[in-house]
Amino acid sequence: MQGAVLPGNSTAEIRSYAVPEPGWGQVLLRMKSSTICGSDIRAIYREHLGKGPEGYQGVIAGHEPCGQIVQTGPGCRRFAVGDRVIVYHISGCGLCNDCRRGYMISCTSEKYRRAYGWQRDGGMADYLLAEEKDLVSLPDALSYTDGAQVACGFGTAYEGLQKIGISGNDAVLITGLGPVGMATAALCRKLGAQRIFGIDVLPERLQLARKLGLCDEVIPSGPNNAAEILALTSGRGVERAVECSGHPDARATAIRATRRWGRIVFLGEGGTVQFQPSADLMHDQKTIYGSWVTSIWRMEELVERLVRWQLFPSSLVTHRFPLARVGEAYALMATGRCGKVAVCFDEEES
Amino acid sequence: MQGAVLPGNSTAEIRSYAVPEPGWGQVLLRMKSSTICGSDIRAIYREHLGKGPEGYQGVIAGHEPCGQIVQTGPGCRRFAVGDRVIVYHISGCGLCNDCRRGYMISCTSEKYRRAYGWQRDGGMADYLLAEEKDLVSLPDALSYTDGAQVACGFGTAYEGLQKIGISGNDAVLITGLGPVGMATAALCRKLGAQRIFGIDVLPERLQLARKLGLCDEVIPSGPNNAAEILALTSGRGVERAVECSGHPDARATAIRATRRWGRIVFLGEGGTVQFQPSADLMHDQKTIYGSWVTSIWRMEELVERLVRWQLFPSSLVTHRFPLARVGEAYALMATGRCGKVAVCFDEEES
Amino acid sequence: MQGAVLPGNSTAEIRSYAVPEPGWGQVLLRMKSSTICGSDIRAIYREHLGKGPEGYQGVIAGHEPCGQIVQTGPGCRRFAVGDRVIVYHISGCGLCNDCRRGYMISCTSEKYRRAYGWQRDGGMADYLLAEEKDLVSLPDALSYTDGAQVACGFGTAYEGLQKIGISGNDAVLITGLGPVGMATAALCRKLGAQRIFGIDVLPERLQLARKLGLCDEVIPSGPNNAAEILALTSGRGVERAVECSGHPDARATAIRATRRWGRIVFLGEGGTVQFQPSADLMHDQKTIYGSWVTSIWRMEELVERLVRWQLFPSSLVTHRFPLARVGEAYALMATGRCGKVAVCFDEEES
Amino acid sequence: MQGAVLPGNSTAEIRSYAVPEPGWGQVLLRMKSSTICGSDIRAIYREHLGKGPEGYQGVIAGHEPCGQIVQTGPGCRRFAVGDRVIVYHISGCGLCNDCRRGYMISCTSEKYRRAYGWQRDGGMADYLLAEEKDLVSLPDALSYTDGAQVACGFGTAYEGLQKIGISGNDAVLITGLGPVGMATAALCRKLGAQRIFGIDVLPERLQLARKLGLCDEVIPSGPNNAAEILALTSGRGVERAVECSGHPDARATAIRATRRWGRIVFLGEGGTVQFQPSADLMHDQKTIYGSWVTSIWRMEELVERLVRWQLFPSSLVTHRFPLARVGEAYALMATGRCGKVAVCFDEEES
Repeated sequence: MQGAVLPGNSTAEIRSYAVPEPGWGQVLLRMKSSTICGSDIRAIYREHLGKGPEGYQGVIAGHEPCGQIVQTGPGCRRFAVGDRVIVYHISGCGLCNDCRRGYMISCTSEKYRRAYGWQRDGGMADYLLAEEKDLVSLPDALSYTDGAQVACGFGTAYEGLQKIGISGNDAVLITGLGPVGMATAALCRKLGAQRIFGIDVLPERLQLARKLGLCDEVIPSGPNNAAEILALTSGRGVERAVECSGHPDARATAIRATRRWGRIVFLGEGGTVQFQPSADLMHDQKTIYGSWVTSIWRMEELVERLVRWQLFPSSLVTHRFPLARVGEAYALMATGRCGKVAVCFDEEES
Repeated sequence: MQGAVLPGNSTAEIRSYAVPEPGWGQVLLRMKSSTICGSDIRAIYREHLGKGPEGYQGVIAGHEPCGQIVQTGPGCRRFAVGDRVIVYHISGCGLCNDCRRGYMISCTSEKYRRAYGWQRDGGMADYLLAEEKDLVSLPDALSYTDGAQVACGFGTAYEGLQKIGISGNDAVLITGLGPVGMATAALCRKLGAQRIFGIDVLPERLQLARKLGLCDEVIPSGPNNAAEILALTSGRGVERAVECSGHPDARATAIRATRRWGRIVFLGEGGTVQFQPSADLMHDQKTIYGSWVTSIWRMEELVERLVRWQLFPSSLVTHRFPLARVGEAYALMATGRCGKVAVCFDEEES
Repeated sequence: MQGAVLPGNSTAEIRSYAVPEPGWGQVLLRMKSSTICGSDIRAIYREHLGKGPEGYQGVIAGHEPCGQIVQTGPGCRRFAVGDRVIVYHISGCGLCNDCRRGYMISCTSEKYRRAYGWQRDGGMADYLLAEEKDLVSLPDALSYTDGAQVACGFGTAYEGLQKIGISGNDAVLITGLGPVGMATAALCRKLGAQRIFGIDVLPERLQLARKLGLCDEVIPSGPNNAAEILALTSGRGVERAVECSGHPDARATAIRATRRWGRIVFLGEGGTVQFQPSADLMHDQKTIYGSWVTSIWRMEELVERLVRWQLFPSSLVTHRFPLARVGEAYALMATGRCGKVAVCFDEEES
Repeated sequence: MQGAVLPGNSTAEIRSYAVPEPGWGQVLLRMKSSTICGSDIRAIYREHLGKGPEGYQGVIAGHEPCGQIVQTGPGCRRFAVGDRVIVYHISGCGLCNDCRRGYMISCTSEKYRRAYGWQRDGGMADYLLAEEKDLVSLPDALSYTDGAQVACGFGTAYEGLQKIGISGNDAVLITGLGPVGMATAALCRKLGAQRIFGIDVLPERLQLARKLGLCDEVIPSGPNNAAEILALTSGRGVERAVECSGHPDARATAIRATRRWGRIVFLGEGGTVQFQPSADLMHDQKTIYGSWVTSIWRMEELVERLVRWQLFPSSLVTHRFPLARVGEAYALMATGRCGKVAVCFDEEES
C-alpha cells in the first residue's frame, strides 16, 4: 500500500508499505477520507516543531481518519467487518485515569500514548491499523468526509461549547475562522445561538463564513474589535466567546468583548495572552475555560447530534484530492486560503 | 375607577373604587392589559381554595398586570411618568434574604408579602397602585399584552428552563399545554430545542400548539405516553422534560420519558407524585428540579431576550375583552378551551 | 480452590473449583478481603429475587473483592504480579457509551456486561479471575479490607456526594445507616460537612454511628423525623440530604427536611416514593438527584482522597470470618445487627 | 460628632460634623467598629488614585463599618433601634439589574451608586447614616469587629470560594496573605479544605498565617513557587487556587500550580497577567474565574455560616485604635506589617 510522510520541508512524500495485520483488539480500515488539520501545517509540514504529544516520529501522516473495517483481529467485541468508523485521533493506554474518563488526548502513559499521524501511522494511506477501543461508529446518514472531521475539528469545538454552554440565550463571538472556528460556528448555529459574530485576518475566510451562513456578522481582525462587538450588542458584549486563533490580541478581544457574567473558552493553540484582570475579568464576573480536544464518549454524543441536526461537516470541505496528489493538498492548506482540505478514496473521491 | 373582584362562585363582580394616590416609592399605572392565569381559576374564581400565599383577600383581581405610569410618588429613582412597565406579581418586603435574591415570590415577611390580585389590588381595574421596586421596563418592541404574560406565565417557564438548561442538544417533552406549557414550548423553540413534544388531555390545546408551530409532535394524554415518547426518540427518551400539568400521571410520564443523565423540572402546581426511584430515576442518573415562579432580575433578562428573539407572548392570546366584560373572560378561561385570555384597555383593546 | 455460592435459602455453600488461567487482558488475584453488601442479602441470600443486572447466575458470590495479582495474561499494560488491587464490581464491554464514560454499572451490552459475584465468579473464593480494565490500584496506605469497600459502598456514596456537593457550608441528613449510609457519613465528615444527622430504625446502627463519631446527632426512625431535623437546624432544614434506606417514608423525610434551594440524592434501592411537589419541592426550589454506583475514574479519585484523608473504610468492619466460615458471615449480615462483615484471607484474617 | 477624612498625603484628618438625620428608609448607626481595607491604602491614603467606583470624594473614610441602630427614619420595614448591623459597603440604586441580583458593587446607576467611605460618608466617625436596604443583621454571637470585616474582606473571599467550590476534596493555594488572603484561608479551613498553602512576600504575614493555624504550609514568594507547590502535592498541583495579591507573577503561579481540571479564582485587584494558554490552561482543562466582592444575600449567608462555624473574623485583627488615633491606624496598615487594623468605639475599644 501507499502512504504519505511529511519530511518537514513543506513537501509530502509517498512511500510504499506492507498492509498491516490486526492483532488482539485491533482492526484494519480501508481509508475513505483523511482531512488536514491546522496543527499538521504548524507543527509538522513546514518544520518538525512539536514536542511530546506533538512530536512527529516520521510515521504516515494524517490524524483525522475515517474508513471502513476490512479485517478484525481477535478479541473485538463491538465492531465488525463492513462497519463504517471514525478514529479518535489519539490511542491511549486505555487504563490511566485520563483514558478512563475517555480523554485519551491526555493519556499519561509515555509508553502507550500514540497519536495517529504523529507517533503511529495515520490516515494518509490506503489502509490504517487502529485499536477497536479508538473507534466511533459512523452512521449511514454521514459520509466518511463528514466523519473525518468529527474527531479533531468538530470534537474540539463541541467540547469547548459544552464547557461554556450555548443556547438561544447567547450571542457568540468566534475569533479565528480556520477549521475549528468554522466548526464552532456551525455547531453554535445548531445549538441555537441567537447571533454569531466571526473575526479573522483573512478576507477569504470571512467570505466563506458568510457564504455558508455560519456567521451573522463577520469583522476583519483589528485593534478595535472589542468595541465593534460591543457596538453590535447594544453595548453589552456577547454572552459567550470562543477563541480559535491562538493569537494574543484575539484572546484579549474575546475576553473584553464578553458581557458581565459571560464565559470565554480558549481552543486556539500556542503563544501567550495578556490582560488586565480587574477591568477585563473580575469586575464583570467573567470566567475563562481552557479546553483540549474531547473525550471519546462526547465524540459519540456529537455524532448522534450531527445526525439529528442534519449537520454535515463535509460542507466545510472546499477541496478534495486523491492520495497520489497529497502534496498539493498540504500545499493548499498551508496557504490558509481555503476551507477544509481532504484526501479521499473510493466513493469519497468525487 | 372600576375594578373586578371574584366572589368565588364562578362570577366576576365589578365595583367602583377611588383612584389611589402613590406614596413613597410607589407609582400609579394606567392599566393596559391584564391576563388571566390558571391559578386564578383553580384557587379563586370557582371557590376560594387558596391559603397563605394563595389566600385571596377580596381585593381587585388580576396578578398579570401591564400598564403605563401616570403618576409617581416621592422617592422614585428609576421609573417616570410615561414609562411602560410590567409588574412582578408579588410585592415582597424587599429586605428578607429571598427578596434580596430577587425572589419576592418566597418573601418570608408575613407582614409585607402581598401578591397583586390576591392580597393587594391587582390589574383588573382602570388603575393600579404598584411599588417602583416591583416594576420591569417594557421595551417599545413589546406590546402591553406581551408584557402582561411575562411575570407569571413566561417568567415561570423561563426560570424552569434556565434551571435544567435547554439548547439544540435537547429534545424536550412538555406535559400540560395550558398557558405555562405553551410559554414553555415557545421559549424552548427560541432556546434552540432540537425537537419539542407536547402532551395534553384537551384536543383544543393540542391543535393550538400544532397550529402555532410550538410543538413538533403532540400526543393526547394516556397511559402509554412514556412509551410513545421513547418511540419518537429512537428509544432513548428526551434529554429534558418540563412538567406543566400538576397531574400525578403526567409527572410520572415526564420522569420516565427522560433519557439517561437527563433532567426534569416540575412547574405544574398541586397534587402528588409517585414513582419508583431505582428504575425511574437512579439507574439512569436523572435529576428532578423543583421551580417556583422566577426572580425579578431574571424577568428583566427574559424581556431582553424576548426582544432579541422577536418572540411575542401575545401570540398565545386567543381572546380579548374590555373590563366591562371581565365576567365573560373568566368564564371562558374556566372552560380551558382557549389560549390565553386578556382583559385590555385603550390601544390594547382591539 | 474453594469458593462459596448462595443457593437462595439463607445458606452459603462451599464448593471446589479449578484455579482459573488468565487470558488476554486478564489477571488472577489471590483474594485477600471480600465484604458483604446489603444487596447480596436482599436479592440473593434469602431468595434469588434479582433480574437483569441483579440476576444471580449461580456463580461464586461476592462483588466487593480486593486482592493481589499472582498471574497476568498477555496484553496487560498497567498492572503486574504483586500489585495490590481493588476490582470495580461490574465488568462491562468496555466499548459502549456508558463504559466509555467509566460507568460500567450501566454497560448496555447484554453479551458482555457481567457483575462479579452475580453473573461471573466473585470474591468469595481463594482466587479471582478479573479483567485488567476493571482494576483500581490499592495504595500501600490502605489495607485490602479498606479496598474491598471502595467499589460498592464507598464508591456509591462518593458519587452521590459529588453530585450534590458537600462542604463546610452544609448540614447533612442521612436516612438509613447501613453500610452505604455509614460510608456516606464518613465521607461527609472528610468533605467538611458542618453537621451530620443520621436516622435509622435499628438502635444498634444508631449506636455504632455515634460510637464511631460518624454522626453528630442520631434519631430513631419515626413519623416526626422531618420536624425533628427542622428543630435541630433552627427551623431551616439541612442543606443536603442523602437517602440510603430505600424506604418510602425515609425518602419523603429526606425531601421535607431539606432547606430552600437544597439538594437531595437517592442512593437506597427498591420500592417507591410519594410526595407533594408544590409544598415539598417546588416552593423551596429544591432538587432531587438519582445516583447509581460510580465510574471507575471516580473510584480512583476516591482512593487518592482516602489516603489524603487517612480515612480507612475497614473501620466500619465489625466482624471478619475466614472463607471456611462464610455461612456465618452471611447469616450475621442478614440480621442487620452489625457493621460491615468481611471474609478475609492471609494477613487480613486476624 | 467627629469623623476622619484622608487628604491623600499619607495622613488622616479629624473633622467635626453635625450628626445626620435619617430620611425615608434610612437609619442612623452608632459606630462600633470600622476596619481598614488594603484598597483604602492603595487608592486613597497615599494618593487619590482611584477613578469611577474607586474615586474618593473627600467624604468621611471607612468602608467596613459595623454599628448599632440608634434612630430610624420613616418607611423602615425590617430593622429597628437597638439592632446590631453590618453595612454592605456600596449603596446602589436598588433598582438596576445588578442591584436586583444583590450585587450593588456593580450598580449601573451613575446617579445613585455611592460607596460608603468613598462617595458617601463612611465608618470612621461617631455616627453613620446608612440605607436600611444596605444592612445585614449581626447576630449576638459575633462582635462588631467580627461584623466589620464581613462586608469587604470575608465577603469577597466567600464569593470567590463559592464560585470555585471548596470542600475536603481540595488542596488550596492562596497567593497573597493580606486581609483577603487571610480571610480566604480561614474560610477554606471551615469549608473543609484538605490542605491550605499560602504564599506571600512578607515574612510577618507568613508567620501570622502559621501562628493562627490558617495555612498548613507557607512559602516565601519566589520564582519557583509553582514547582514548590507541585512538590508538596505529589506532583499533581492543587485542586483550587485563590489569587489575592494582584501581582502578575503570583497570578501565573496560581494558574500553573493548579491541577488538571482544577479551578483558579482571581480576587486581588490591579495590574496585569500573562501566561501561555496551551500549557498553562487548556491542556489541563483548567478554568479561571473572575470575582468581585459579593451580593448582599450571600453576605447574609456568610454571617449565618460564621456563627455555625464559630469563626470569628476579629481574630485576624492585630491592632485596635480609638477614633482619636485614626492616623496611627492608617499609618500602621500602610506598612503591611500587621494583620487587620480596626478603629473601635465603646465596648469594642478594649
